[in-house]
Amino acid sequence: MTQFKDIHSRQLQLLADDELALRLERVKNALVSAGADSVLISDSANIFYLTGRVFAGYIYYNIADKEPIYIVRRPNDLISDRAVRLGRFAEITTLIKENPKCTAPECIALELDILNFNMAKRLMDALPGTGFANASPAMRAARAVKTRLEQHLMKESGVRHARVYSRIPHIYQQGMTDIELQVEIERQSRLEGNLGIFRINGCDMEIYMGNVLTGENSDIPTPYDFAMGGAGLNPSLPVGADGSLIEPHHTVMVDVNGNFTGYMTDMTRCFALESLDDKTLAAHQLSIDIVHALTDMARPGVEAKKLYEKAEAMAKEAGMAEYFMGHRQHAAFVGHGLGIEINEAPVISPRSRDILEAGNAIALEPKFVIPGQGAAGIESTILVKTEGPAECITNAPEQIIYFE
Amino acid sequence: MTQFKDIHSRQLQLLADDELALRLERVKNALVSAGADSVLISDSANIFYLTGRVFAGYIYYNIADKEPIYIVRRPNDLISDRAVRLGRFAEITTLIKENPKCTAPECIALELDILNFNMAKRLMDALPGTGFANASPAMRAARAVKTRLEQHLMKESGVRHARVYSRIPHIYQQGMTDIELQVEIERQSRLEGNLGIFRINGCDMEIYMGNVLTGENSDIPTPYDFAMGGAGLNPSLPVGADGSLIEPHHTVMVDVNGNFTGYMTDMTRCFALESLDDKTLAAHQLSIDIVHALTDMARPGVEAKKLYEKAEAMAKEAGMAEYFMGHRQHAAFVGHGLGIEINEAPVISPRSRDILEAGNAIALEPKFVIPGQGAAGIESTILVKTEGPAECITNAPEQIIYFE
Repeated sequence: MTQFKDIHSRQLQLLADDELALRLERVKNALVSAGADSVLISDSANIFYLTGRVFAGYIYYNIADKEPIYIVRRPNDLISDRAVRLGRFAEITTLIKENPKCTAPECIALELDILNFNMAKRLMDALPGTGFANASPAMRAARAVKTRLEQHLMKESGVRHARVYSRIPHIYQQGMTDIELQVEIERQSRLEGNLGIFRINGCDMEIYMGNVLTGENSDIPTPYDFAMGGAGLNPSLPVGADGSLIEPHHTVMVDVNGNFTGYMTDMTRCFALESLDDKTLAAHQLSIDIVHALTDMARPGVEAKKLYEKAEAMAKEAGMAEYFMGHRQHAAFVGHGLGIEINEAPVISPRSRDILEAGNAIALEPKFVIPGQGAAGIESTILVKTEGPAECITNAPEQIIYFE
Repeated sequence: MTQFKDIHSRQLQLLADDELALRLERVKNALVSAGADSVLISDSANIFYLTGRVFAGYIYYNIADKEPIYIVRRPNDLISDRAVRLGRFAEITTLIKENPKCTAPECIALELDILNFNMAKRLMDALPGTGFANASPAMRAARAVKTRLEQHLMKESGVRHARVYSRIPHIYQQGMTDIELQVEIERQSRLEGNLGIFRINGCDMEIYMGNVLTGENSDIPTPYDFAMGGAGLNPSLPVGADGSLIEPHHTVMVDVNGNFTGYMTDMTRCFALESLDDKTLAAHQLSIDIVHALTDMARPGVEAKKLYEKAEAMAKEAGMAEYFMGHRQHAAFVGHGLGIEINEAPVISPRSRDILEAGNAIALEPKFVIPGQGAAGIESTILVKTEGPAECITNAPEQIIYFE
């Protein structure tokens, strides 16, 4: 496990200046579009984006300044000449408005889609005489296009993710339930260096590390806006594996997270015990065909909704519309941006207004649920390139693999 | 794994009427104290508390009504005569203000410590002519006292949690790193039925399933308000195990979550390879003594801060103050309420205004970090009883267990 070496020094390391400059440039452009001259960040995912590590506190950045300042509550050993320490909350006013290291804000963007109401009000009260804008869409727009370093980190996750999936046929043992298989996949993934944590923007979704679905359980509706279902083990987390025995002639769909680097890849593959019926096989091949078609279409300037429309048209043409993205309950998207969090921009849905850009990372997941059989299809993570088709970075075999 | 049987029917099952009535009574009293006549709930933990399952949508409850209504977005198969379906968001106005099944609100409490700023504004705009209050402290107060059923679910988690810990000495193999041991504990816990998910109120803390800390790594400050440290595997999640080899004469502190029922227990135990120095042994015994003293003190009517003061005084008297609740960075509490989430009321801290009540569930964790040696001490979950000392529900052996 050489990836764990020198961890103490790595944890204190922040983004290199040239990488920070690339990301700040994107944030700056997004802030100007939002009519703000500055931003105050406190969300972990956004702090990680702008520093390369998570800390508790705030980042303040004014577009008039070359650099942001880090207003740090914890840890108490974060070393940076950009860092100032925050003791009492009230000190934030002086640290932002009367700090020789930064320009005071005229219109400051706050993460209003993330900050809780009372915290947002508290920050507004601490910055009187300042205009406010919403930083959430701006940070979402900035993070939608990955830098070369971010793409590298996603590719590294993709390689390790595929390595874990390559071991699934060897992990399966006769008589296993869905959850027993899932636990062994989680273990294998953690030993490969998976950080475990599954970052989701907002509070609308909860999940542990992923889902393994087999048979009828695949068709159980869930509270969450995930493509696939499952009753789960307990009504406090009603999604995913429910203890069903893995039985012959049903698919086993594995969708377990790939967070090896702080940047996640998303990948789904199907397995089975013995033969499957023709409809399930056709649905699986159709999913592969859709992913390939969308990977080819995913080029800069293309409307995200066109990808959804293409997928839906292919499902309809094959007579598979009623199984597309679920059966008893349908998800209204076929793909989603991802990176630090699992639900970033662009969204591949019928009402999306996103336009694809080079550097977008997108998980494509045109899945089908065949009642009585289970779920079929794949999910792959792609990177949109400057020219040509997108690049798939989760390169495990796409065909159904049969357990022996 | 008999606990997984009949899962599909269990997932659709809601709280029995008498249990719901107990919880509603607590919510009603808390709302009256907050000056509100009604509440609108959307947080998963609060929805689980008031229904016994998680769904996406809202619960509306007016204290003039006998029952709440469930305004459900997903899943589409939730069956209850209290449930109404929410299509477009705008329908929420009519469903609350012109619904024959419920009384319209005059002053409605919203979860303003949880809801994001924009969502809170959207709800306020959807309910014109209504007064608003903060539901978060009210729900926190209601949930701080566990019903008999909730206590039963916590005890069940405690029993299974202890069973997992009893296997740790058999899981350890020579030459393991902290993360390798942690992964095997996670697996054992998941096979025992752990749901994995670690619910934390608010967005200030992130963790996967728990922490295993050994040696110097125990003293690395983290961004989070946890008692213990650790550099973690990656700067995106800088807490916990960092790949350190488990070496002789250092402690191995295991603090892995016990969410087996939707209700969590919290338990920490220490292990070691070969002998430990006297200071570490003394610190561990002191922690056990503090837990016992606080368990005896934890009775209805006692101020929570008195427990903190007692713990601090015992640490000072033993000359261990500089190691108490961390060394390079100190946590400012010695215990916390828990249940559906890991950070509920009451808080055992010097500035806490909480008064203990029968039915409180509290994790006591007076821990010490001895530089060069590691972390020492235990954490136990207790239930405050109507009479007599509190009851410990995480009954794994408290002494340090030596790996063979």
